[in-house]
Amino acid sequence: MSESTLSAAAEDPVFAMHRGGKISVRPSVDVTDRQSLAMAYTPGVARVCTAIAEAPELAADYTWVSNTVAVVTDGTAVLGLGDIGPAAAMPVMEGKSLLFKRFADVDAVPICLACTSADEIVAAVAALAPSFGGINLEDISAPRCFEIENRLSSLLDIPVFHDDQHGTAIVTLAALRGAARVAGKELGQLRAVVAGAGASGVAVTRMLLRAGIGDIAVSDSKGLIYRRREGLNPVKAALAAQTNKAGLTGSTESALRGADVFIGLSSGTVAESAIASMAPRAIVFALSNPDPEVHPDVAGRHALVVATGRSDFPNQINNSLAFPGVFRGALDTRATDITESMKLAAADAIAALVGADAAAGYVIPGQFDERVAPAVAAAVAAQARADGVTRR
Amino acid sequence: MSESTLSAAAEDPVFAMHRGGKISVRPSVDVTDRQSLAMAYTPGVARVCTAIAEAPELAADYTWVSNTVAVVTDGTAVLGLGDIGPAAAMPVMEGKSLLFKRFADVDAVPICLACTSADEIVAAVAALAPSFGGINLEDISAPRCFEIENRLSSLLDIPVFHDDQHGTAIVTLAALRGAARVAGKELGQLRAVVAGAGASGVAVTRMLLRAGIGDIAVSDSKGLIYRRREGLNPVKAALAAQTNKAGLTGSTESALRGADVFIGLSSGTVAESAIASMAPRAIVFALSNPDPEVHPDVAGRHALVVATGRSDFPNQINNSLAFPGVFRGALDTRATDITESMKLAAADAIAALVGADAAAGYVIPGQFDERVAPAVAAAVAAQARADGVTRR
Repeated sequence: MSESTLSAAAEDPVFAMHRGGKISVRPSVDVTDRQSLAMAYTPGVARVCTAIAEAPELAADYTWVSNTVAVVTDGTAVLGLGDIGPAAAMPVMEGKSLLFKRFADVDAVPICLACTSADEIVAAVAALAPSFGGINLEDISAPRCFEIENRLSSLLDIPVFHDDQHGTAIVTLAALRGAARVAGKELGQLRAVVAGAGASGVAVTRMLLRAGIGDIAVSDSKGLIYRRREGLNPVKAALAAQTNKAGLTGSTESALRGADVFIGLSSGTVAESAIASMAPRAIVFALSNPDPEVHPDVAGRHALVVATGRSDFPNQINNSLAFPGVFRGALDTRATDITESMKLAAADAIAALVGADAAAGYVIPGQFDERVAPAVAAAVAAQARADGVTRR
Repeated sequence: MSESTLSAAAEDPVFAMHRGGKISVRPSVDVTDRQSLAMAYTPGVARVCTAIAEAPELAADYTWVSNTVAVVTDGTAVLGLGDIGPAAAMPVMEGKSLLFKRFADVDAVPICLACTSADEIVAAVAALAPSFGGINLEDISAPRCFEIENRLSSLLDIPVFHDDQHGTAIVTLAALRGAARVAGKELGQLRAVVAGAGASGVAVTRMLLRAGIGDIAVSDSKGLIYRRREGLNPVKAALAAQTNKAGLTGSTESALRGADVFIGLSSGTVAESAIASMAPRAIVFALSNPDPEVHPDVAGRHALVVATGRSDFPNQINNSLAFPGVFRGALDTRATDITESMKLAAADAIAALVGADAAAGYVIPGQFDERVAPAVAAAVAAQARADGVTRR
């Protein structure tokens, strides 16, 4: 880092806010004298340990584990920055931990790993799993993220949730329900184009398909994904089999002609002319951060509903509407998994808060709508019970 | 756990104190509106990540890592309870984390591992190391603990400290300096008997040898350790080469005849007659928890100075006098290691607080002597600088 960059950082209020980190560990009991020390620590603590050794389910009552989530990354796909490594990923993981506490009273601990192979990450997370009530995977690049999540979900009896996939999918579906209502269109009639086949593009597509969307065409850096395209990895091949009914080939922009919905998760750009070629009352979710695929003012000339990941425009679609409540609901019920129907329930709960109030500038609740996390938690907990994956 | 045990637990104030755990994660910055959210999280956080990716040393300034310690166990040697597993070990690790914060403002995170082989533990800790400024190993059984600590110290550029070894050794040496002063004996003239050749027995012995004690005989469950004893593991064989100058064989109790110091780290018992056979002005440290090897009232009939691990008798020797300040000093200087001389400096700093005030009932500061952690931190930091292991 150059001297000038360093001095710029010194004056930047963002850096000032991050100095010393954004979270801390606090005692939740007072240790003020020999008696309280002897209760919180040796010799008194031995009685609690012995009780848990005899009845493991007591760990949920007498330790902090049942309220904790590990926010785990290997630093390979951090925001739009790419593979910047574990140390540089920490500010995001701390931020996530901060939001877990702020919105859902979950004690989250950032864990940045010094390994990147699926085998090593699975082994490390499995090793530390007894310390946590849930695992939030974060900013792990595709396609490893799919394998890592699947293997850990099978191995562990606590919820494993890759937020870049499922958090994004939940908030996107929630916003799309609001937007469809504004546009007067049914989900089953919509034709969508998803730009990006990384973790979030794949998960959003899968979730919209489960929710019953009409059709989706997905593109990656080589263009649209279709059944006979060569060199598809297994994840994209599976996607090709479920999407793009018309067998479109070519560019993202070509597929936008007549489409109802554009969802950008690509860090790329889309020309105004392509947005202009969409169906009437089009829906544009330009979700790349910090730079949307198309500026919302530009998209707004042609589309009825425009949403981005940015806080300075209406309709901010951000995972932080989902992950705190999802884990709150899972922890409250001591769920062993976060099922697909629990994710759909989370999306529906967010969408229901907008409901009939939906408008072109209000398709999803605001980041500080205090109803969101409790509503998501309740919906996720109820669905967990319905799915039979709870332990209380 | 039986119904009656469960209902007893429900009425036990110790269990009430541990309910829900003893620590929590707290945001240290406020996120109250869209602007602060955009600074603490996306998109603002990306600037901090980018800066750290370009200049990794900035992670110490702009994340919480430089103030954090992982308290890592596999649950194989928890207190005097033995191998009770990772889940049942958590209350101790939380207690430790609580004390780290209470005494030295260190943010400590309990990590209970689901693996027990040295290879797996080393791999897991090495993987999560970028998330922490130091590693406190805890309640890992001997002899694996020695190998694990050595390998991790070599692998990592942050301090690795097995508290059962070095924390115990530091406070024992500190107390022995005070006791020797009371007894009017020089350290170099003392003949000591250490009962126990586990993690703490080995480390205490090594540290007392480095401090210049006259001689030590160490015993394990098979009796005294001497050079020609068969079947010694490598750690005990090395100990045999440095200890027991007289080549004593037989029992711990037989070695106590004429000895100046008894240090119990064994969970065993010692008969009153053996204590009575010690040299005049004898020193007895009966450190097993919760039951000392000999009751302090019984030992006090024959010995000049009696210390235990118990808070309800004078001279409580407890690691919590050492580990908070040791890590505070190491973190403050961003030390890469905790050297042997840093440990000796910690012991001397604790002993110096007693100094000339030493008395039979006051050979070590009390647990709540607020001078201790800052004094230990300052001594450790100064020695780290002298040893050239600091990064600031």
